Amino acid sequence: MDVRDSGFHGKLDDDQSESQISHLALDIGGTLIKLVYFSRNKDNLIDENKNRKNSFVEGRLHFAKFETSKINDCLEFILSNKLHLGGFQHHEDPASDKILIKATGGGAYRFADLIKEKLGVSIEKEEEMECLVAGANFLLKAVHQEAYTYMDGRKEFVHIDHNDLYPYLLVNIGSGVSMIKVDGDGKFERISGTSVGGGTFWGLGRLLTKCKSFDELLELSHQGNNRVIDMLVGDIYGGLDYSKIGLSSTTIASSFGKAISDNRELEEYKPEDIARSLLRMISNNIGQIAYLNALRFGLKRIFFGGFFIRSHAFTMDTISVAVNFWSKGEAKAMFLNHEGFLGALGAFMSYVKHGHDDSISPQSGQRYPVCTPLVGDKICYPLNGDLNDNDSLECSVYVA
Amino acid sequence: MDVRDSGFHGKLDDDQSESQISHLALDIGGTLIKLVYFSRNKDNLIDENKNRKNSFVEGRLHFAKFETSKINDCLEFILSNKLHLGGFQHHEDPASDKILIKATGGGAYRFADLIKEKLGVSIEKEEEMECLVAGANFLLKAVHQEAYTYMDGRKEFVHIDHNDLYPYLLVNIGSGVSMIKVDGDGKFERISGTSVGGGTFWGLGRLLTKCKSFDELLELSHQGNNRVIDMLVGDIYGGLDYSKIGLSSTTIASSFGKAISDNRELEEYKPEDIARSLLRMISNNIGQIAYLNALRFGLKRIFFGGFFIRSHAFTMDTISVAVNFWSKGEAKAMFLNHEGFLGALGAFMSYVKHGHDDSISPQSGQRYPVCTPLVGDKICYPLNGDLNDNDSLECSVYVA
Repeated sequence: MDVRDSGFHGKLDDDQSESQISHLALDIGGTLIKLVYFSRNKDNLIDENKNRKNSFVEGRLHFAKFETSKINDCLEFILSNKLHLGGFQHHEDPASDKILIKATGGGAYRFADLIKEKLGVSIEKEEEMECLVAGANFLLKAVHQEAYTYMDGRKEFVHIDHNDLYPYLLVNIGSGVSMIKVDGDGKFERISGTSVGGGTFWGLGRLLTKCKSFDELLELSHQGNNRVIDMLVGDIYGGLDYSKIGLSSTTIASSFGKAISDNRELEEYKPEDIARSLLRMISNNIGQIAYLNALRFGLKRIFFGGFFIRSHAFTMDTISVAVNFWSKGEAKAMFLNHEGFLGALGAFMSYVKHGHDDSISPQSGQRYPVCTPLVGDKICYPLNGDLNDNDSLECSVYVA
Repeated sequence: MDVRDSGFHGKLDDDQSESQISHLALDIGGTLIKLVYFSRNKDNLIDENKNRKNSFVEGRLHFAKFETSKINDCLEFILSNKLHLGGFQHHEDPASDKILIKATGGGAYRFADLIKEKLGVSIEKEEEMECLVAGANFLLKAVHQEAYTYMDGRKEFVHIDHNDLYPYLLVNIGSGVSMIKVDGDGKFERISGTSVGGGTFWGLGRLLTKCKSFDELLELSHQGNNRVIDMLVGDIYGGLDYSKIGLSSTTIASSFGKAISDNRELEEYKPEDIARSLLRMISNNIGQIAYLNALRFGLKRIFFGGFFIRSHAFTMDTISVAVNFWSKGEAKAMFLNHEGFLGALGAFMSYVKHGHDDSISPQSGQRYPVCTPLVGDKICYPLNGDLNDNDSLECSVYVA
């Protein structure tokens, strides 16, 4: 998607650019760059707690994303809005005017030099899995109505009991998929993963349908019928179920299996049917591998995050059905409103962890800033209409 | 592949057609029909054991396959070689001249009427999973040098201890994949499966490369380089390993993930690179899901069968590496020389089980006919050069 075509002109709206922006954090993945940054509300330094030395600042967390292949557009966006000044100064050398920005993901390594050159700031690299976990823990603990189940078109928010959150399985579906067993704050292990992820959906999907964007492909899949290309149990069994092993006639026996005998060329299939089969294949596969890993470690809760999902109904439905089918109803898939920003949020949280600059610190008695999602309260995004509904989070940060 | 183009003219060579053919068994899958039948050697009724009433007949088991979409060619082959007379008469009504043929797979249901119409014989359906297990048990116990490991281009036969064979995991990769925990003769449970199987490789491969056959696609993959289209860890991390979680820079992070940012059309990729990525994605995925299921039930031995494999070096290597990687060296993938014929062999074995006709019975002290693979001793196959190396098995059957 060309940023210039999407109505983005490089500057935030006046309201936001006038407010003070700080704590820019990046998650530079194989396909997408995710940005999180904090903007203070104007004149809002509230000394809530007179007995304490420190204060809360009210403001908002903002989320944005760019394609990694268009990193120059992303850097231009950062530069023209002075987001890069929202880093911190080197704590070992406070006199230095060197600014450091928190970043995670492979691109923090790959693009460190480019960022230094274009923005004049250095990258402080944060470990990717650590960031994903910190971001997920933050969202699950601090944000009201963050996690939900999705089944048969029904979204149901899940109450998270802070004292009974761990252990859980975090499945982050980016270009590839990481599966992480989370046992507590900073306590985790990457136990599995698969290369069949969002990059596979988009990559194969582009080749098969000539779609120009991930979202176009997702939208297409919405209208498609996977039965045109998938070989169903009923196709093999002459319309019958294979009831002895619990497979109904409509179960997919072989993804894309009907393309073998159809003798049709690629162009003779509708792109929407192809997109649907592909999405179902990948979502189902991830759901199955996730469940098998949850089972292995006795994890009851599986949270799915990452930009592959995009609150897309059919994707979530397929993952939910897969987890439900393989676990015989024992396990439930859960999703996160801010699914795509786990890593970036984790990198953002690391400003707290290291006590940098005017550190964001957790509110007393709470481990994290208090946040309320503000649906529809949008800022000017680089990619219009390309984000989750919850584009910013109201948030107080604790200023030391 | 058109049967007429492949040099097949519908009749077996004279030697074979003159010998008596019996016990035709079919496995009609979503993509392929597999045939097994027995031919007696001429004048070879040997009464080996004078103390017993019954005798062994020497002969051979023969294997053949057709595409399911070309079932009419298959039926013509059966008819012109009178293989269909190698069934049995109804045991409840021996006076009837109705001939029954053993068949398994979904096509035993789907094509029962067609077979009755064209061949004048009825199908006695055998349960698919039961046949796969019976076929695998037969091969593992009765056939010398049947199972082997394959790693780094090295094939090593595995000695099977008959007293320590169970439990094992049988992974049958046909159009789709079935995973069966086998605990003994006739004792098994289908514990898992995946729709990402041989039909996916061929179906997606056809659409992406315009290959005309599965074998052409396999051959292509041999020459390809998956790094052209797969997104590697090094592509994300700027050439670095992600050593903290044990991922080298050459690990595939996202299958087909590079196709996202390349901005190349399908036609701009080499078909061989696409075939390679696809084969690696699917083989790796099956290996991973198989291992997770083996782990779940504490199964140390995993045997891979089904016509997807076709003794293809890269396929076996990828599956072996996947099992080795995910199990941290604890588990080993094993393959079977007659991988594609498990179901058909199982249906063939069921002639024994039910005591039909001049039943094949196990030799005294052995549960199965004594078989020795005869490499290179070929009969005229419907699809030239399209089969495993071991095209027939020398075999004695016990005649009641």
